[in-house]
Amino acid sequence: MNDSQIVFLKSLVRNVPDFPVKGIQFKDLTPMFKNPKALRLVGDGLAELYRDKGVTLVAGIESRGFIGASMMATRLGAGFVPIRKPGKLPADILQQSYQKEYGVDTIEVHADSVTSEDVVVIHDDLLATGGTMLAAYQLIQKMHPAKVYINFLCAIPQLNGRLILPDDVEVTTLFDF
Amino acid sequence: MNDSQIVFLKSLVRNVPDFPVKGIQFKDLTPMFKNPKALRLVGDGLAELYRDKGVTLVAGIESRGFIGASMMATRLGAGFVPIRKPGKLPADILQQSYQKEYGVDTIEVHADSVTSEDVVVIHDDLLATGGTMLAAYQLIQKMHPAKVYINFLCAIPQLNGRLILPDDVEVTTLFDF
Repeated sequence: MNDSQIVFLKSLVRNVPDFPVKGIQFKDLTPMFKNPKALRLVGDGLAELYRDKGVTLVAGIESRGFIGASMMATRLGAGFVPIRKPGKLPADILQQSYQKEYGVDTIEVHADSVTSEDVVVIHDDLLATGGTMLAAYQLIQKMHPAKVYINFLCAIPQLNGRLILPDDVEVTTLFDF
Repeated sequence: MNDSQIVFLKSLVRNVPDFPVKGIQFKDLTPMFKNPKALRLVGDGLAELYRDKGVTLVAGIESRGFIGASMMATRLGAGFVPIRKPGKLPADILQQSYQKEYGVDTIEVHADSVTSEDVVVIHDDLLATGGTMLAAYQLIQKMHPAKVYINFLCAIPQLNGRLILPDDVEVTTLFDF
């Protein structure tokens, strides 16, 4: 991705004040996904970050992470694995719970979705405080893949989400705010 | 898609008895999405159905519909629009409620996501009774697009979901059970 492409993508992010709660400015990526040229740039750009890394699976975090993850996976010749909210996956699952601002959340993955030979990219759309991604990383690690990468479409560096993610894991983004 | 490709995809669908409730056999598509060759076949096959139709937007129904919709959109040079559960979309929204087996459900879309010049494919992973897709169709129609198509990755014809969808709308699937 070159600078003008990043400027183009950022120009399509909508800042929504006071969502989901007062005082939070929400980064709405839907205008970017709606733009055909931007959507293709996102898919191509995400895949490019992992082109020669032998990725076999891209795990997307429900729901918005499904968008970039499936586009990445198919470009890389990898498979797609959903990390979902509780009760959605029908077969044997693994769970990981984590602390949110108000209460505890849980995410799940199918227990047979990753093998010890897999090279996995875990993808979500936005890195904010990083709590969900840390849980997703811990969840995927339960299946002992050969290698795990962490990727976000974009990040808000001021929220310091990178700091709670493991030091020894490569974390990439397409762009930062 | 040729017959052997369809046989291959179907072989990767997992039948899960008694999910989400007793007596229902759930069609779990996650083993198909996890298979790199199958994932690419799905993306290519879905896009092929709309190759020369001037599609400008693919609307995916949360959450599983996001997977196929984003792969289709980027292959067709179209944009992606999410149809979501209530409270998830941050800007001005339109709503559509519909009857489910137990109670009423609602789906939402951003009010500025479709224009009168758009040709829209609404995509979901599986056609069962068709209630959610009918609501999604009614929701998208509120924005008066030039044309709407309906697409599913697969369908369970015995559940007669096609019958509740409008007669005059073209409905396609990659394969039926």
